[in-house]
Amino acid sequence: MAHVKHMKWWGWGEEDVHFEYANKPAFAPFVKKALGVDLRPRERDTIPFSTVTVPGSRAGAEVLEALRAVSGAEHMSVDDELRVVHWAGKSVTELLLTRAGEFARVPDVVVYPADEQEVAAVLAVAVERDLVVIPFGGGTSISRSLQPSPHEERTIVSLDLGRMNQVLAVDETAGLATIQAGVLGPDMEAQLNARGWTLGHFPDSFTHSTLGGWAATRSSGMQSDKYGDIADIVRGMRVVRPGGTVVLRPLPSTSTGPSLREMFLGSEGRLGVITELDVQVHRVAEHREVIAYMFPTWQRALSAMHAIARSGVPTTFARVSDAHETAFSLSTQKAPTGLKKKLTAKGQDLLWEVMRRRGWDTDAMCIGYVCFEGAKAEVERHKKAVAGLVKHEGALVLGSGPGALYDQKKFDTPYLRDFLLEQNTIGDVSETAAPWSKLATVHQAVYEAAERAFRSQGKQGWIMSHMSHSYHSGACLYFTFGYGIGEDPHAEYAVIKGAVQQAFVDAGGTLSHHHGVGTEHSPWMAQDVSPEGVQLLRDLFAVADPGANLNPGKIVD
Amino acid sequence: MAHVKHMKWWGWGEEDVHFEYANKPAFAPFVKKALGVDLRPRERDTIPFSTVTVPGSRAGAEVLEALRAVSGAEHMSVDDELRVVHWAGKSVTELLLTRAGEFARVPDVVVYPADEQEVAAVLAVAVERDLVVIPFGGGTSISRSLQPSPHEERTIVSLDLGRMNQVLAVDETAGLATIQAGVLGPDMEAQLNARGWTLGHFPDSFTHSTLGGWAATRSSGMQSDKYGDIADIVRGMRVVRPGGTVVLRPLPSTSTGPSLREMFLGSEGRLGVITELDVQVHRVAEHREVIAYMFPTWQRALSAMHAIARSGVPTTFARVSDAHETAFSLSTQKAPTGLKKKLTAKGQDLLWEVMRRRGWDTDAMCIGYVCFEGAKAEVERHKKAVAGLVKHEGALVLGSGPGALYDQKKFDTPYLRDFLLEQNTIGDVSETAAPWSKLATVHQAVYEAAERAFRSQGKQGWIMSHMSHSYHSGACLYFTFGYGIGEDPHAEYAVIKGAVQQAFVDAGGTLSHHHGVGTEHSPWMAQDVSPEGVQLLRDLFAVADPGANLNPGKIVD
Repeated sequence: MAHVKHMKWWGWGEEDVHFEYANKPAFAPFVKKALGVDLRPRERDTIPFSTVTVPGSRAGAEVLEALRAVSGAEHMSVDDELRVVHWAGKSVTELLLTRAGEFARVPDVVVYPADEQEVAAVLAVAVERDLVVIPFGGGTSISRSLQPSPHEERTIVSLDLGRMNQVLAVDETAGLATIQAGVLGPDMEAQLNARGWTLGHFPDSFTHSTLGGWAATRSSGMQSDKYGDIADIVRGMRVVRPGGTVVLRPLPSTSTGPSLREMFLGSEGRLGVITELDVQVHRVAEHREVIAYMFPTWQRALSAMHAIARSGVPTTFARVSDAHETAFSLSTQKAPTGLKKKLTAKGQDLLWEVMRRRGWDTDAMCIGYVCFEGAKAEVERHKKAVAGLVKHEGALVLGSGPGALYDQKKFDTPYLRDFLLEQNTIGDVSETAAPWSKLATVHQAVYEAAERAFRSQGKQGWIMSHMSHSYHSGACLYFTFGYGIGEDPHAEYAVIKGAVQQAFVDAGGTLSHHHGVGTEHSPWMAQDVSPEGVQLLRDLFAVADPGANLNPGKIVD
Repeated sequence: MAHVKHMKWWGWGEEDVHFEYANKPAFAPFVKKALGVDLRPRERDTIPFSTVTVPGSRAGAEVLEALRAVSGAEHMSVDDELRVVHWAGKSVTELLLTRAGEFARVPDVVVYPADEQEVAAVLAVAVERDLVVIPFGGGTSISRSLQPSPHEERTIVSLDLGRMNQVLAVDETAGLATIQAGVLGPDMEAQLNARGWTLGHFPDSFTHSTLGGWAATRSSGMQSDKYGDIADIVRGMRVVRPGGTVVLRPLPSTSTGPSLREMFLGSEGRLGVITELDVQVHRVAEHREVIAYMFPTWQRALSAMHAIARSGVPTTFARVSDAHETAFSLSTQKAPTGLKKKLTAKGQDLLWEVMRRRGWDTDAMCIGYVCFEGAKAEVERHKKAVAGLVKHEGALVLGSGPGALYDQKKFDTPYLRDFLLEQNTIGDVSETAAPWSKLATVHQAVYEAAERAFRSQGKQGWIMSHMSHSYHSGACLYFTFGYGIGEDPHAEYAVIKGAVQQAFVDAGGTLSHHHGVGTEHSPWMAQDVSPEGVQLLRDLFAVADPGANLNPGKIVD
C-alpha cells in the first residue's frame, strides 16, 4: 500500500505543508478585525496519531480472508491510522470529529484493488456477506460523502482506488483519453502533459483528489468555463456493479433514453464503483495569461461577468471576488521585499490614487480575474474584447501581475482551514449556482442569513464570496465564512452552515454547484429537486442496490 | 379539440402540402439511376380515411366517465380518425401499417388536458384503473416511441398535450423561458420572437413537433452547434408522475447527485409526463448567413469540419454532405427560370470548369454549409476564418446563394417520404454519433452494410449521408437510404434498417444521435449501453412505474 499516497490523518494535504502567515503582514490584523480572533504562531507541525483512540476493526476472520483472496494480503489493511485516513473526508464537521477522536464508526478494513476485476470481486464478497463498501478516491470530500453512518452495524470496507492510476490510452484524433478512476490530479496531468495533452480540470482539491472522485461528485474546476464541468468532460465510463459492469462507450452525444452517464455522475458510490473513464482532453494551450481587473462595486462586477459570458469571447475562467473577499485577498498577499517592495508600494499608491480620483468607495471595490488561452494573437484579441466589456462597467485593468499571483496560490487555500482550526477558528466554504437574474439576491440573502446566524450564536463572523463559473443562464457563487469556535462546535456549525444552505435554496440557488451532496447537504435535497425527485432517487438506489451495500445513506437517506 | 392541430392520419404534415418533382428536372432521372424506379406524377392528394378500418375503442363507460370528469367531454374523444392520428409516429414501419390499415392496437381514447392538474388527474385515473398512458406531442417520432404494444390488453389513453402551448414567462436577464410542453415549434418561436427571443432549436420535424417531445426524446436541431442539444437547453422542468410532480428548478448547473433532469430527458413517457420546461433562450441574431463550400472528397470535407470544430470559431451549424448526398442535393434543385436561369447556368459551368482544372473527380465532391450568426463584423471575421480552414482542405467557397437555398427547403424533406411511398419506394433516415477517430470507419461500415443488405434483398438501393453536428470529441452522421418496395415490405425493411443500425454500434457509433429509442432501436440498447446498463434502466422503470402504466415497452422492454 505504501505507494498509494494519502493525506494527513488529521487534516488537509501533505504532512510538511502548512499555511504560513508570518510573511503576510496584513493577515493577522485582518483576522482580528473580521473575526475578533488574535492569531498566534503555529505551535505544532503535526498531530501525533497517538492522541486519538480508534475503535477496533470489526471485520471477522472470514471477511478478511475473502478480501485477502481478492487483492492479496499486501493490499488489504486493518491498520488504525489507515482506517482513520479512510474514515471520512475533510469537511469542518469531519475535521472536528477527527481531531477530537470522535470516530463513532470507522471502516473496518481498507482494500486496494489492482484492477476492475478485483473491484468486482470485492463487490461480490460485499453482497454475499452483506458488507458496506465505500469507494475512496483522494478523501477530499467536504460533503460527508465518505463518512459511514454512526449506526452501521455491518462490516465496512473502504475501497481505495489509488492503485488504479494510469492514463491507459489517448485517442489523439478525437481528443479523448481513457483513464483509470483512482489517479490523482497531478499524476494524471503529468501523464497527459507528457503526451502534450491536458484534461483542463482543476478543482481547488486538485492536488489530492482523483478523476473518479470528480465524476462521482459532479466536480467543477477553476477552468471549467473553457474545459467544461466534469459532467461535460466525461464521455464514457466503466462502472462495476454487483453482478456486472456497466460499459458506456465514449460518445460525443446520444439519445439512448435516460442518461446512464448522467446517473452515474454524482452517484457518490451508491450505484457502483466507477473504475475507468473516457474523458475529453485538449492540447496544452500555446499561451496563457491571467489578467486582473478592479471593479468599483459588486453589482458592476457581476454585470461585467455576465457581459463576458454573453459576449461569446472564449475565456478559460472569468471570476470576481466581492468586496469582502477582495479585502481578504489583499490581506493574504505576501510582503514584497527589496526593489519589488518599492515598485509594489508605488503601484498600489498609484492604484489607490486613481480610485480616489474616480470617487470609488475602496471598501466596495471588487477584484476579478479572467484567464485567456490560445495562440498569442487570439489571446490579445480576447483580452482587448474583455477590457472593453469591463471598462464599460467602470473597471480598471490591473494587468497580469496579480493574475500570476492568483495562479500561484490557487491550491493552497484548504491548508488555511487547518491553521484556523488550530486557532480554534472555523473557516469554511459553500457554493451554489443560480440564474443571472437571481445572483445578486442569492448573494444578499446568504450574507443576511450568515450574519443573522452569527448573531444568534453570539459571534463576530465573516463571510465573503466570489463568482467562479459562468453559464448561459447563470453562474456559481462560492462563499467562504469564518468565526471563532464556541462551546458547542457542532451545534453552532449546524446553525451557521445550515443558514447558508437554506438561503441558497430559498433564494433560487442550488444546494451545491460542485461539492456534491453526501450527508452534509442531503437535508436540502427535497427543497432542491422536490420531494418527488428525492423519492425517485431513493427508489433508484433501492432497486439498484437492494442490499444497501453501496455507500448507503448518502445523497438521500 | 378542433384547435389542437394534428398531421395527416396517413402521412407527414399538412393535408395540402406535398413533395413536387415536376419543377425539379433532375429528380426523376436521379431516382431512376439510383433506385431503378420510374417515377410517375402524384395520382392523389390525400387518402380518404374510409379506406381503412379501425379497431373500435375498448374504453369502458366507467373509464370514459372518469376521464371526462377530468377534462370535460369536449376534450376527450373516441373518434376513429383521431385515435388513428394518435396511434403511432411516422416511422416507415408505422406509415406502412397505417396506409395498409394494419393497426393491431390503437389508443382507445384521446384526452387533451388543459393543464398540469388535469395531467395529474389523468395519471391518477390510469393508475387506479390500470390503464396505459402514452403522452403525445406532435406525433413525429420515427423511433416507434408512440405505438402501443400490439399485445396490450388494457385500455390505452393517448394524452395529447396540444392545449398546453404557451410561453409562460421569459426571464430576460437569465435568458431563460418557462414554456408548456405541448407547444409546437412554430407556435413557440412565434411567441418567443414576438419578445425578441429564440430557442434556436430546429430539428427537421420542427414544424410538427413539440418542446416536450424534443425533451422526451433527446432531440437535436439544425443549429445545435450554437444553441446546444435539447439536453443542454433544458435547465429545469416539471414532470407529473403518479402520486406527485417532480419540480426541477431552473439552474445553470448543480451537483445534486444523479441528474434527475438527465433521467427525464429521453425518458419517452416512461417516467411521467413532462408538462413544463425552463429552457435557455437567446436574442434573435442580428445577422445570419449560410455559406456553401464544395470539397474535393469526403475525407477532406470531414477534416475541414473537424478543423472548424477544433478552431473554436463559433458557428451556428457546420455540416457537409458526402458525395452521394451532394449528387442527390443537386438533383432536387428547382429549375431556374428567366435571367436567373442564364446566371445559374453560367455559374455552374464556371464551377465545373474550376473543378475540372483542379483535377477533381466530380463524383467525389461534397457540398458543405456553415451558418454564421452575430454582429455583421463578427460574422465577417468568422466567415474569413472558416474560409481559411476549408481552403486548407482544398475546398471552393461557393458563397451564400446555395446557402439561402438550404435555409428554404430545410423542413420539406419528410414530405418526400410520403411521395416515395406512393411510388412503392422507401426513403428513410437513421443517424448516429461517433468519435472523430471513428467517423470515416462508421461511414464506410454503414455503406457496406446497407449495400450488402440491398443485395441480400435483391434490390438496387441508395444510401447517402451528411455530417450534421460537431462536438469536441466527435460528430453526428445522418444517413438517408432508399429502395423499391418488394413482396414483404416489413421483412426487407427489418433487414436493411437493421443492417444500418448494426453497423453503427459495431463500428463505435451510438444507435441514435437524436431520434431516440422507442421500440425501433431498443434491440441495439444492450450493445450501446451494455446489458448491465439496460438492466439498470429496466430496474428504474420498474420501480418508478410498478404498474407499467406509463408508455410501457419503450426504450427497453
